[in-house]
Amino acid sequence: MYELGVVYRNIPRSPAHLADQLARFGSATVHEALGRVGLLHTGIRPIYAGAQVAGTAVTVLLHPGDNWMMHVVAEQIQPGDIVVAAITAPCTDGYFGDLLATSFQARGARALVIDAGVRDVRTLTEMRFPVWSKAISAKGTIKATLGSVNIPVVCAGALVCPGDVIVADDDGVVCVPRALAERALAAAAAREANEGEKRAQLAAGVLGLDMYKMREPLAKAGLKYID
Amino acid sequence: MYELGVVYRNIPRSPAHLADQLARFGSATVHEALGRVGLLHTGIRPIYAGAQVAGTAVTVLLHPGDNWMMHVVAEQIQPGDIVVAAITAPCTDGYFGDLLATSFQARGARALVIDAGVRDVRTLTEMRFPVWSKAISAKGTIKATLGSVNIPVVCAGALVCPGDVIVADDDGVVCVPRALAERALAAAAAREANEGEKRAQLAAGVLGLDMYKMREPLAKAGLKYID
Amino acid sequence: MYELGVVYRNIPRSPAHLADQLARFGSATVHEALGRVGLLHTGIRPIYAGAQVAGTAVTVLLHPGDNWMMHVVAEQIQPGDIVVAAITAPCTDGYFGDLLATSFQARGARALVIDAGVRDVRTLTEMRFPVWSKAISAKGTIKATLGSVNIPVVCAGALVCPGDVIVADDDGVVCVPRALAERALAAAAAREANEGEKRAQLAAGVLGLDMYKMREPLAKAGLKYID
Amino acid sequence: MYELGVVYRNIPRSPAHLADQLARFGSATVHEALGRVGLLHTGIRPIYAGAQVAGTAVTVLLHPGDNWMMHVVAEQIQPGDIVVAAITAPCTDGYFGDLLATSFQARGARALVIDAGVRDVRTLTEMRFPVWSKAISAKGTIKATLGSVNIPVVCAGALVCPGDVIVADDDGVVCVPRALAERALAAAAAREANEGEKRAQLAAGVLGLDMYKMREPLAKAGLKYID
Amino acid sequence: MYELGVVYRNIPRSPAHLADQLARFGSATVHEALGRVGLLHTGIRPIYAGAQVAGTAVTVLLHPGDNWMMHVVAEQIQPGDIVVAAITAPCTDGYFGDLLATSFQARGARALVIDAGVRDVRTLTEMRFPVWSKAISAKGTIKATLGSVNIPVVCAGALVCPGDVIVADDDGVVCVPRALAERALAAAAAREANEGEKRAQLAAGVLGLDMYKMREPLAKAGLKYID
Amino acid sequence: MYELGVVYRNIPRSPAHLADQLARFGSATVHEALGRVGLLHTGIRPIYAGAQVAGTAVTVLLHPGDNWMMHVVAEQIQPGDIVVAAITAPCTDGYFGDLLATSFQARGARALVIDAGVRDVRTLTEMRFPVWSKAISAKGTIKATLGSVNIPVVCAGALVCPGDVIVADDDGVVCVPRALAERALAAAAAREANEGEKRAQLAAGVLGLDMYKMREPLAKAGLKYID
Repeated sequence: MYELGVVYRNIPRSPAHLADQLARFGSATVHEALGRVGLLHTGIRPIYAGAQVAGTAVTVLLHPGDNWMMHVVAEQIQPGDIVVAAITAPCTDGYFGDLLATSFQARGARALVIDAGVRDVRTLTEMRFPVWSKAISAKGTIKATLGSVNIPVVCAGALVCPGDVIVADDDGVVCVPRALAERALAAAAAREANEGEKRAQLAAGVLGLDMYKMREPLAKAGLKYID
Repeated sequence: MYELGVVYRNIPRSPAHLADQLARFGSATVHEALGRVGLLHTGIRPIYAGAQVAGTAVTVLLHPGDNWMMHVVAEQIQPGDIVVAAITAPCTDGYFGDLLATSFQARGARALVIDAGVRDVRTLTEMRFPVWSKAISAKGTIKATLGSVNIPVVCAGALVCPGDVIVADDDGVVCVPRALAERALAAAAAREANEGEKRAQLAAGVLGLDMYKMREPLAKAGLKYID
Repeated sequence: MYELGVVYRNIPRSPAHLADQLARFGSATVHEALGRVGLLHTGIRPIYAGAQVAGTAVTVLLHPGDNWMMHVVAEQIQPGDIVVAAITAPCTDGYFGDLLATSFQARGARALVIDAGVRDVRTLTEMRFPVWSKAISAKGTIKATLGSVNIPVVCAGALVCPGDVIVADDDGVVCVPRALAERALAAAAAREANEGEKRAQLAAGVLGLDMYKMREPLAKAGLKYID
Repeated sequence: MYELGVVYRNIPRSPAHLADQLARFGSATVHEALGRVGLLHTGIRPIYAGAQVAGTAVTVLLHPGDNWMMHVVAEQIQPGDIVVAAITAPCTDGYFGDLLATSFQARGARALVIDAGVRDVRTLTEMRFPVWSKAISAKGTIKATLGSVNIPVVCAGALVCPGDVIVADDDGVVCVPRALAERALAAAAAREANEGEKRAQLAAGVLGLDMYKMREPLAKAGLKYID
Repeated sequence: MYELGVVYRNIPRSPAHLADQLARFGSATVHEALGRVGLLHTGIRPIYAGAQVAGTAVTVLLHPGDNWMMHVVAEQIQPGDIVVAAITAPCTDGYFGDLLATSFQARGARALVIDAGVRDVRTLTEMRFPVWSKAISAKGTIKATLGSVNIPVVCAGALVCPGDVIVADDDGVVCVPRALAERALAAAAAREANEGEKRAQLAAGVLGLDMYKMREPLAKAGLKYID
Repeated sequence: MYELGVVYRNIPRSPAHLADQLARFGSATVHEALGRVGLLHTGIRPIYAGAQVAGTAVTVLLHPGDNWMMHVVAEQIQPGDIVVAAITAPCTDGYFGDLLATSFQARGARALVIDAGVRDVRTLTEMRFPVWSKAISAKGTIKATLGSVNIPVVCAGALVCPGDVIVADDDGVVCVPRALAERALAAAAAREANEGEKRAQLAAGVLGLDMYKMREPLAKAGLKYID
């Protein structure tokens, strides 16, 4: 967390196929599968609706109002990565715009997650380069101070280590630790296995009270019906 | 407000035709018609733009991080209802997703208003099940604690009693007390009666200053023009 | 700032062609061109995505919950203007709806920027009358207290003088002082001159590190790469 | 909630002795005794530390920036009352200062709870007139619009009916419905009955784990100790 | 507002005697006397209770995370000044601590008002150097970028020009434009002239309703009493 | 971060003498000594002014509204520890009151840092048990769900590992990683070595501009003085 001015070049990444498969479950299911941990603050929102991606985290620690390290991290991107940017103090400046997005996309990045602001959002939307950020701001940044690349960072309240899997969609952003990615995938798949069945029943008017057999525990907990 | 663990089954509802008619006026006009009271906090926003609905309130009081009572309230939904969910302490968790929405929709619910978070918003949008919430969050909830159904609740700063009419659109959410629904409808209709006329005049370049005869009161209040 | 109850009728405006040309650069580029000053708070957001406009500021100072002066400012609008509304204390009420928008549009206003709330946003969106506001609220206002028109105001943290150029898009709102509009335009044009070239290089995989010749200054600042 | 322009003069109040006895338990114990409901938002804070009071609620509904009804409510105060002020929309203005406090104190009011701002806080502190508010603001208000006195109000998220008992201290403000005041007092007393005993044990180094016999349920829930 | 890198050395200041006299009225009375304008956001709070000062504004514009100009402004301080610090983007860093306070105090500064954070607050409190800030933060700043000294700034939502009078106490901070200082003083004195008389009456139990003759206008506005 | 239901009993702690010595430097100096990282959000504030402590971190991860693990962590406290409590989702409930404080104090805890609320603050203040929290709330919690003890946690935006040194005072809370504690102490001592000398010079009227030799770099950066 505390090393400044370093770039780790060879980081172990979660296998690409795990990220690819986690993507289709979405952040809510994956978050459940992890035991309801690893979620970034709900203030982190997508700049446009409908994107759903997963990728391996390449992290960058930046200073308020300074995006110099964004260019440094660009070089460390490999196809399938998602850049996760943390800032050393709260900041809403626009660290990232269409030029950097062009570069990130050219390097194979799937998305950016940043605990600060971005700009050129209309162009980013047209490019279909998805970004999750806490602000949108026309305010640019300077390039003056060293941060670090590929160290563990705290981004929007969640610890993200390089190589972790990031799952992001309209519901938010979840970080899956590399060591748990396989297990999370299995748990997510298990959760979804009989969802179709459940949905059909509910659509047919069956109540969750009956489908999940909740009437007894509710009565036991003391629930009273009054006519 | 204070009963926990109870479900009121037979609540008096505002007549359906009042809700149906209030829907087409929208929240701003209805709020005016009520004397500018009954509005939920502006932090309650629709998960997608363009929905405009009204319905009879079925209320549920939940605990932070616990959506057990959502299944209990589902059974009390009648066609034309809008579920209004209050939480006993501030919480942004995702209490509601596509499965519950399927169930609510099957029961005839027109919408959900919740002073907390929801998830699966992309699917909810595709289903066209409108939700007004204060957050979007992938974080799920547990099912462990009793709340209540169909008691008066404070939701996003407004008192909502079961059977009240809820009017919701892109401008926000208004609660019309059951006893005032008829009067609110009449007042809303009166307000809109000559709106088309006014709009035409304004579009033709007539100033509100003249149309509303404001020049005299403004001068009387002391307004000075400086060239 | 401090005159209440006055309307300045003859304000010097930035030349229309400057606003027209600044519009196409957008708020981010113009903000850079100004030396990164003049940006309104990032809490000011467009009510719909995609609008990009610039115009000359006509200012109005209002009291909380009172939009009387909105009708007064309407008369002062000339084609190409953008109305900038400041409030004397924080307020989220809906000061502006479809009727006022009809009037503003008829007078030639290009947009409204307001440090408070607006309503009828669905209709405003259909009318394509762009608004940047800090809230959306069904709550209307009264017409009881005098404010002022065309005095300097502080709107969302930025000083706006009548006749300044306002540039607004999805990235936010920037105020360009009248005396700097020409210079800002030149600087914006210079910034964008070789953007296409840069974008092409970045899209081809060239790194910003090389394109901007950052490797040496980074090394000098002490950046270390670890394999 | 919705009547504007009315003053209810003869409200039933909780018996004075109940308020007096609830005062010494403080807001935390009383809130527990109520089943953890009735708490105002934590943004409502005392203007000085150390006050601990309870009294019967006299309610007032005000408009943003307008304190006219404060003078109306003053007349309805009886010794032992606490004035509870709600506003129809969010506002931080200073509705209350040393003159009104002098009047309230002369009428026998024990405190003010207000979901807005107050001023003259140094003088209020010297007078030892306790106030719980969400803001401190030098900004005064006008006297132009009617609200109501002694109707049910939603104050900082909690429903307060005239005659309810308000308990306030450094931990916050709780509203005890009149019908529950007796029961709440009994429950609060029961809660505190053996607190001294518990405190002594904990001070002697006994662990809550043992005192509350938590080890077995924790083990059953799956807690694992790792050396 | 927009000049960066300049220091104005010879600014016209409001006469010292005006600031001295405005100090004893406090921010609430002075704000009223100004017509309820000029107040900084209520988020600006004193680091300790009880200070009440006024002085002539010396302004400084800083960048986020950079306090270099604090040393530049120190040289421009004259006895009786209050330093007003604005930041070009929201920032909570601790720009000011005990060493700078020692320097400011040695130069004759009466206080600091800053729309950011400060630190060493325990020492500042012991030194009795009053500070109004929006945050307290241990996080220090760098010294790398030029701002300006003695240009007009927007600080916490209010325009402050060099030489204006700043009045600050527990109720907040008000800026009195230099040209209005004399008039504000007269108005403040007039407001307070018969306050003692009023206070005595209210303390004796006279109601504001009668003292201010409000009963008739209230009845006229439609107020109804219900027994 | 992600293990739930575990308690690590034997954690390596930073040597007591390091914490003891870091305490006297305070959070601002230690934060600088660390290179300006490791600070918790500025929203974490002491419940009373004047406490300045340091200790070794014992961590606990809790669920919203559930303080069961507080009793589990109590057993793991050793003299000189500071308990650091993180919550899996934003929560302002009062997790901690006078009984737990009695227990913690009996075990030798020096303080509590919690990213949630606490209560009984008047008693805690009388006990001189210092707490840094983000809220004060009368709302209690339940005891139903397992969290973990002595795993790495993210608390108020900072990563805290068991055994790290926590430094807390009126300026905020800093976490010093165990591996850096010795180095941080040396750097802090170096920073303070000549502070007395500097303070004396500044008190004598020497300007920082001269003492730090800033005039040349400022001129080089382009600072212009205008008379």
